[in-house]
Amino acid sequence: MRQEFKGNGASRGSALGRARVRLPHALEVAEEHISPEQVADELARLHRAIDVVRAQMHELRQRLHGALAHEIGEFLDLHALLLDDPELLQGLDALIRTGRYTADYALRLQRDRIAAVFAGMDDAYLRSRIDDIDQVVGRIHAALHSRENGAEGVAGEILITDNVAPAELAQLQAQGVVAIVTSAGSTLSHSAILARSLHLPLVVGLPQALLKINDGDALIVDGGSGLVVAEPAPADLRTHRQREREYIRERKELHRLRREPTRTIDGVDIHLYANAESREDVAEAHALGASGIGLYRTEFLFLQRNELPDEEEQFRAYRDVVLGMSGRPVTIRTLDLGADKADRTGLAMRDEPNPALGLRGVRLSLARANLLDTQLRALLRASGYGPLRVLVPMISSREEVREVKARLRSLARDLRTQGHEIADHIPLGAMIEVPAAAIALPGFIGSVDFLSIGTNDLVQYLLAADRNNEALADLYTPLHPAVLRLLRDVIRLAHTRGRPIAVCGEMAGDPLYAPLLLSLGLTEFSLHPNTLLEVRRLIRECDLAALRKRMPSLLRARDRAGIEAWMKV
Amino acid sequence: MRQEFKGNGASRGSALGRARVRLPHALEVAEEHISPEQVADELARLHRAIDVVRAQMHELRQRLHGALAHEIGEFLDLHALLLDDPELLQGLDALIRTGRYTADYALRLQRDRIAAVFAGMDDAYLRSRIDDIDQVVGRIHAALHSRENGAEGVAGEILITDNVAPAELAQLQAQGVVAIVTSAGSTLSHSAILARSLHLPLVVGLPQALLKINDGDALIVDGGSGLVVAEPAPADLRTHRQREREYIRERKELHRLRREPTRTIDGVDIHLYANAESREDVAEAHALGASGIGLYRTEFLFLQRNELPDEEEQFRAYRDVVLGMSGRPVTIRTLDLGADKADRTGLAMRDEPNPALGLRGVRLSLARANLLDTQLRALLRASGYGPLRVLVPMISSREEVREVKARLRSLARDLRTQGHEIADHIPLGAMIEVPAAAIALPGFIGSVDFLSIGTNDLVQYLLAADRNNEALADLYTPLHPAVLRLLRDVIRLAHTRGRPIAVCGEMAGDPLYAPLLLSLGLTEFSLHPNTLLEVRRLIRECDLAALRKRMPSLLRARDRAGIEAWMKV
Repeated sequence: MRQEFKGNGASRGSALGRARVRLPHALEVAEEHISPEQVADELARLHRAIDVVRAQMHELRQRLHGALAHEIGEFLDLHALLLDDPELLQGLDALIRTGRYTADYALRLQRDRIAAVFAGMDDAYLRSRIDDIDQVVGRIHAALHSRENGAEGVAGEILITDNVAPAELAQLQAQGVVAIVTSAGSTLSHSAILARSLHLPLVVGLPQALLKINDGDALIVDGGSGLVVAEPAPADLRTHRQREREYIRERKELHRLRREPTRTIDGVDIHLYANAESREDVAEAHALGASGIGLYRTEFLFLQRNELPDEEEQFRAYRDVVLGMSGRPVTIRTLDLGADKADRTGLAMRDEPNPALGLRGVRLSLARANLLDTQLRALLRASGYGPLRVLVPMISSREEVREVKARLRSLARDLRTQGHEIADHIPLGAMIEVPAAAIALPGFIGSVDFLSIGTNDLVQYLLAADRNNEALADLYTPLHPAVLRLLRDVIRLAHTRGRPIAVCGEMAGDPLYAPLLLSLGLTEFSLHPNTLLEVRRLIRECDLAALRKRMPSLLRARDRAGIEAWMKV
Repeated sequence: MRQEFKGNGASRGSALGRARVRLPHALEVAEEHISPEQVADELARLHRAIDVVRAQMHELRQRLHGALAHEIGEFLDLHALLLDDPELLQGLDALIRTGRYTADYALRLQRDRIAAVFAGMDDAYLRSRIDDIDQVVGRIHAALHSRENGAEGVAGEILITDNVAPAELAQLQAQGVVAIVTSAGSTLSHSAILARSLHLPLVVGLPQALLKINDGDALIVDGGSGLVVAEPAPADLRTHRQREREYIRERKELHRLRREPTRTIDGVDIHLYANAESREDVAEAHALGASGIGLYRTEFLFLQRNELPDEEEQFRAYRDVVLGMSGRPVTIRTLDLGADKADRTGLAMRDEPNPALGLRGVRLSLARANLLDTQLRALLRASGYGPLRVLVPMISSREEVREVKARLRSLARDLRTQGHEIADHIPLGAMIEVPAAAIALPGFIGSVDFLSIGTNDLVQYLLAADRNNEALADLYTPLHPAVLRLLRDVIRLAHTRGRPIAVCGEMAGDPLYAPLLLSLGLTEFSLHPNTLLEVRRLIRECDLAALRKRMPSLLRARDRAGIEAWMKV
């Protein structure tokens, strides 16, 4: 029967799919018994469901490639192992056979048994594996209830859950999730920002979702209006198709902006640089008319392999980026590897209790002999092929800047002596993402040529809130007076001292935040090509002088509500 | 043969003991063979060593009590298990029997074999267990070479290592380590601060230590001068005893300061409050003439137990602290539990990737229904027995302050209605330890009655450097221009707005930092009773006006070297 729900639209787009309900905690299944004659059927039903899940996971595994294969693959492998765990399977069979429980209730009992064993373990890591058990059990439960079993179950899934962590989003999309509906959450959360940049429809703040939507329900989700329709009628399908056509038309219109300047109503040119980490990103940035590459991440050269890339390999990769942008400036960030990234080269520390506060970025580069030198040499050599800037992540002090700068100079001298053609001047920049660097910037701004503010990490450290921690989804926000004040101070100092400054965090790629950043004085954005045109369109509708005039009232806001009120005007 | 080494004295005190060398990486043992006739003796030698280690660990386990029993106990239990692991033991026996290796080389081979298995595991947690294997192997190796086996081996150990993490120090002291010598490290590191507050002699920056000192060597360590003597001569022993007497006399003189005021040369009274978490701390604070309790930690009521303490139990504990200080003000901090603290009540999140940036402090209190209310009710009731202030940890925004304040008011109303006698006004304070709170303080200082700066966490977040991460020992320091600037701003704002403000981090308890804090305007210190008299003595030698005059030059320092130079004047 058709049902309509209204939440808050957090990421636009219309999606049609089948619901997959992910319950926040243990399964809530009532005790139900079956007759002795039903046992065989119930066992068959259970094993059909397990086979479906096995097939789903196998298909998923096949479809993964690149970085995702590595990151998600391990989880899937673990889940496949759990699925074949004799304790789980035999326990379930025994419960159905001798307890004469339904497969559902047997699943719950067996889950609780295993969970009790895990919960009793002293080891925090092992205790946390309950989550994996729950995911596998949840999938089996979903398969028991999905109205159409089979391959179709994977594609076009709409996830119904209490909350979603930012780190999950790309994975879920890769797994075939076409939209997400959460009972909690905010349209300004980090997850919402990411969903928008992934063009993944998201509706938040819909508490009935978990109660009223069943696994396998056909759903239409409109991430623009926040409307969710279960078991849609033909009229709903027509509306969905129409909305889809609208979004496509919209995107076509957006496409026309590729060759337009990013100019405000009052005629000020804003620079939109692209964040990139692949050849495809660079090509897209070029096609979209980006001012250049504002952040080229080099981690991908180092991941998914057992040995470090040598100077030659790195040189070729950097040179190709420079050539790919045909004369527009390219900013390449030195390695920002840390214990939180999957690393098989053994570079990063293997067991830090707080990897986000650990040996990462420039700290790792300086701690590992040759690591920095090899990368700098490759960058210097690439600078012979076009305008290249070197950006250093996780700078926290003047000492680090000067150490890198000294290395860069000495290596440039060596390379010139060796006959390499390198640029006369290679601009060196610092990422401003460690709060201490933002505050102590007056003491070292003279040593750098440009700056790039990494708002993702800066906000995380300023608020002491892990941006991937779902429990802090409401706490982690750039809409905090301290964040705005620091951004204003850093941008103002950079302009006073004639240093180009950009924001390269996800904040810069979200049209919602563009007026706020413009108001704070920002004129350079570095963002994923995904949303470049949307941000350009929005900036073209902004009156910069008016926004700048409103800055004092923005800085007077004492809390998030005050800032959000400012944004709504 | 007597040998003398000179490092940097980082924590004063003279200690006599036997060396325990903790190698940074795998054992470096040369391949050595034995004759067939020696096999039986070598096996006996190995098993004697293992028995010694087993006895040591058993004795250690017995001697632990309180919080340490819980924290270290689990590690010891794990190590005891590893020690009895048949794979380890049978492998060793087989290597000695069939390979005719010395026990030492067999130990190394077997260690490397196990390590290879662990290293191949996909799971980061399991991979990290290599460290435990290494600790056990290291202990066996030490026992193979200790000159006097037996119970004496445990007491009076002097640890020789490359570096030591702050979190280890209290544990090591509890395990009978009487002094530490490190090849790396700085006298201003966090570990050095902690060693001084524990009165644990520490010598740093002695690279020869690991090369030249052998397990079991008799050593004399003077943490004042940085002198280390191996296999001391009778004259050295006399010097050691004399130095011991000096330290004792010094402490007696210090003792006289119990009844003296903490007054600078120019006649300004500075307030020294005590940090406390037990009845003993409170009694000592009282005896030392502390101005009151500046930070009473309540975590200990919640740890080492399976259920939460109820209102009545908490009330009695808080009342006893208030009564114990007989009228001097007592500041009690609400629960600062997080995933990094051993917690069996199930309150904290069980598996956060970055617990320091997680659901802790006021976040946890506000997230768990009733947790905060129960504690606030108990605190309110205790306020009827003397001056009590409530301090809230991990405040990051105005919203949190106002939420706690509203709860406190409403609960006070309820309790008065129920006939409880509570103070007319219970001052509410915020810990300033999240950078965002320090920066956005102007927006909410009007809502609090007092402030306390938690420099340990504030520095950690500002620098994005885990203070317990050994790899960042040189990076984590309060001697950063951003830290000093923020401290100055916060202290100045608090004074302007008439809010009492203290520093309660370890920085406040180290005499080395007192002039710096006085220069920044601080007049209230909250510190462990351990070093209260030393800080008092130093402050009594300070000219406050002269220090304040030097503040601008302190704030002009652009890096750590500049700040250290300021401190040396």
